[in-house]
Amino acid sequence: MKNLTIDITKIYNFVNQPAVASLNAEVNNSIDKLLNGTGKGNDFIGWITLPHDIAFQLDDINATARMLRKECDVIVCIGIGGSYLGAKAVIEALSNPFACYDNSKPKIVFAGQNISEDYLFELQEYLKDKKFGIISISKSGTTTEPALAFRLLKTQLEQQVGKQVARQLIVCITDKAKGALRTLATEEGYKTYVIEDNIGGRFSVLSPVGLLPIACAGFDINRLIKGADDMQKICTSKDLDNNPAATYAAARNALYSKGKKVELLVNFEPKLHYIAEWWKQLYGESEGKENKGIFPAAVDFTTDLHSMGQYIQEGERHLFETVISVQTPKHHVDFPYNESNLDGLNFLAGKRVDEVNKMAELGTMLAHVDGGVPNIHITLPVLDEYYLGQLLFFFEFACGISGYILDVNPFNQPGVEAYKKNMFALLNKPGYEKESEAIRQRIAQN
Amino acid sequence: MKNLTIDITKIYNFVNQPAVASLNAEVNNSIDKLLNGTGKGNDFIGWITLPHDIAFQLDDINATARMLRKECDVIVCIGIGGSYLGAKAVIEALSNPFACYDNSKPKIVFAGQNISEDYLFELQEYLKDKKFGIISISKSGTTTEPALAFRLLKTQLEQQVGKQVARQLIVCITDKAKGALRTLATEEGYKTYVIEDNIGGRFSVLSPVGLLPIACAGFDINRLIKGADDMQKICTSKDLDNNPAATYAAARNALYSKGKKVELLVNFEPKLHYIAEWWKQLYGESEGKENKGIFPAAVDFTTDLHSMGQYIQEGERHLFETVISVQTPKHHVDFPYNESNLDGLNFLAGKRVDEVNKMAELGTMLAHVDGGVPNIHITLPVLDEYYLGQLLFFFEFACGISGYILDVNPFNQPGVEAYKKNMFALLNKPGYEKESEAIRQRIAQN
Repeated sequence: MKNLTIDITKIYNFVNQPAVASLNAEVNNSIDKLLNGTGKGNDFIGWITLPHDIAFQLDDINATARMLRKECDVIVCIGIGGSYLGAKAVIEALSNPFACYDNSKPKIVFAGQNISEDYLFELQEYLKDKKFGIISISKSGTTTEPALAFRLLKTQLEQQVGKQVARQLIVCITDKAKGALRTLATEEGYKTYVIEDNIGGRFSVLSPVGLLPIACAGFDINRLIKGADDMQKICTSKDLDNNPAATYAAARNALYSKGKKVELLVNFEPKLHYIAEWWKQLYGESEGKENKGIFPAAVDFTTDLHSMGQYIQEGERHLFETVISVQTPKHHVDFPYNESNLDGLNFLAGKRVDEVNKMAELGTMLAHVDGGVPNIHITLPVLDEYYLGQLLFFFEFACGISGYILDVNPFNQPGVEAYKKNMFALLNKPGYEKESEAIRQRIAQN
Repeated sequence: MKNLTIDITKIYNFVNQPAVASLNAEVNNSIDKLLNGTGKGNDFIGWITLPHDIAFQLDDINATARMLRKECDVIVCIGIGGSYLGAKAVIEALSNPFACYDNSKPKIVFAGQNISEDYLFELQEYLKDKKFGIISISKSGTTTEPALAFRLLKTQLEQQVGKQVARQLIVCITDKAKGALRTLATEEGYKTYVIEDNIGGRFSVLSPVGLLPIACAGFDINRLIKGADDMQKICTSKDLDNNPAATYAAARNALYSKGKKVELLVNFEPKLHYIAEWWKQLYGESEGKENKGIFPAAVDFTTDLHSMGQYIQEGERHLFETVISVQTPKHHVDFPYNESNLDGLNFLAGKRVDEVNKMAELGTMLAHVDGGVPNIHITLPVLDEYYLGQLLFFFEFACGISGYILDVNPFNQPGVEAYKKNMFALLNKPGYEKESEAIRQRIAQN
């Protein structure tokens, strides 16, 4: 069977092959650190063996998903950041975008990923006449956004179906022993899954955090894990020429050192939009520290060739592109013939639509390279569970290597506390009295 | 009545007030060029008087929208770039995100904004048992993506309802006299609206291009235009201290000249997500040329504080943020009290959810400014048609000023042809024989 492949030949106009190859020692060293647990943040590398370690839980997760799918018209997944993006990304990648309009059940919706009063109001209105279930995902159970959503929806569910039935329709994914959500789940007798201590949020898509929502959406998590497991073997190999994670990590660091400070993750299939959002967290949060790191951005082509295309072709030359290309679509549509041919497109008639898309992809790559934008090209044979599993693990392992080449701890996120501290001070959280006083003085002085 | 306001005081740690004020002469000069038509690209400034010029067409557009809403379960808007993003942005900003799941009609869906074979297949499947109408938006009628979608859907509609009925359910927005879509519309007797020669795609949201889809979605385009018209008077004023477009244009250029090469458009209300996509085209396509221009990116907070927050707080210091803040939500939800208080959030009980969101916003601004990220703050009193009209015109006019300060032609997009030329050469388009030969040789040599 074919695997995900990567092609970096279209960066060699900008950074030559020896310069990339000169990173091989660092890449090797980084792989060692990841596999031996000797690098920075080594208490958060449980995700490396997850495709293997999770195997014994898949039957249980599938059984819970079957139960929720049977009982619910709507399943609300509550979570934020890494407890949201992985599931959202895989579900969107595999879903028919028009399925929201049909009568299929269950619908999967998300909550706890914002503090929008209108979003929560409209969600509660929507759920009023629905039989719904809740997957509540939070390591601590105290993160403001998901805790708020869970307060609101737990109460609503209990009011709609009674406390007894509600208990059967709530599943928690949280710390194995401590924290607010674990305590509540124990008290109420909710079904639970564990977020392991050595797996950070942005590396958790292949744990129950991602797998239960994905299974609830009706997708084959066993194939997803199989793909990840197969890719794990490839990415942990020291045969660097055939290790796509090593290649990607070296290429992007070589480009970064030449001043390419913005990476655009590109797709030509709109279903991949949220894969890019997941990737932004993975790379932005892992590398964006110590005033370093490539800025992760994303575009959906050809859509955004008609919005961001001009900038990419001719704007500031601080960009490079990483394209995720899907080799073969799921369905078949031919470009139709038209008698009058007013639009002059009959030269395309009879070709598959995807052939036109592929020539747009190739033509864009050549144009952007000519314009000064290096290009990394990742190919997936098809967009299914198996190859998404490969893609997810590939990006995760490459991120670990890349972060070590950059010499940061890729597994912490010290900067995300700053705004929370201010927010809690502004909201007079007990224990923040000194900070509240200080921030009020600061604002008064402005 | 209050208006949109802007606050740039949180950029003064990074670029001082005199440095921003020193741009006043250039701002003044740019406003003159826009109003007198003496600047670069002056054959494309029809959008400046559009809020006034469009008034006489509103009744007709509303009548067409009423007809389509009455006759159709689904209205498909076909367009790409500026013929897509404006309508999509306004409709999403005003819609209940869960309305896709209910039985309300008509549903508004988009097509012609990609070349995805799966998207087109799944759209055609979805439309099979639906009574649908088409709004086909293209100046030339020959742009590949919308022309392909229109070929497919016109045929499908005619097969489903017959040619006679189909003619009543297709509306074209195109050139006033020439081009493929105008010719077809004349032949078939379709209802049409005109894309004026002096209004480019990314400045067309307040023309029929944006207004007809927005009206079809059930929103009040008269209020949208009223907001834009009121903002037009404010933005064209030489009282620079009270001109938010002048302020925004000066601030972002001052920051750009200090090395802040990435602008993050930030919202704390997920409905604004596509406003940012529209804004990306507006600024990216207007300014990204001659190897210049701020890279436009966007985040939805607090969602993305849990993904991009780390990078923004501590990554490369090439960023600034422009926040769109909505002062008052539409609905009312209080933070609920919880007896057991396991999550420790009872200190928030009884506050409006939006107050928590606002403190997240303020806390984030202070944290990011402390981290080295300047902050521009735009406030809308409420998120409705009127203030969206203000916001759209504000961004458009500021973009014109900003592009002139940057000394580019903000109204052309010479770089978007490069990939198309390659694509047509690769696809053997008649007339591209030489290019086809050349590109094939190039690929063979690689």
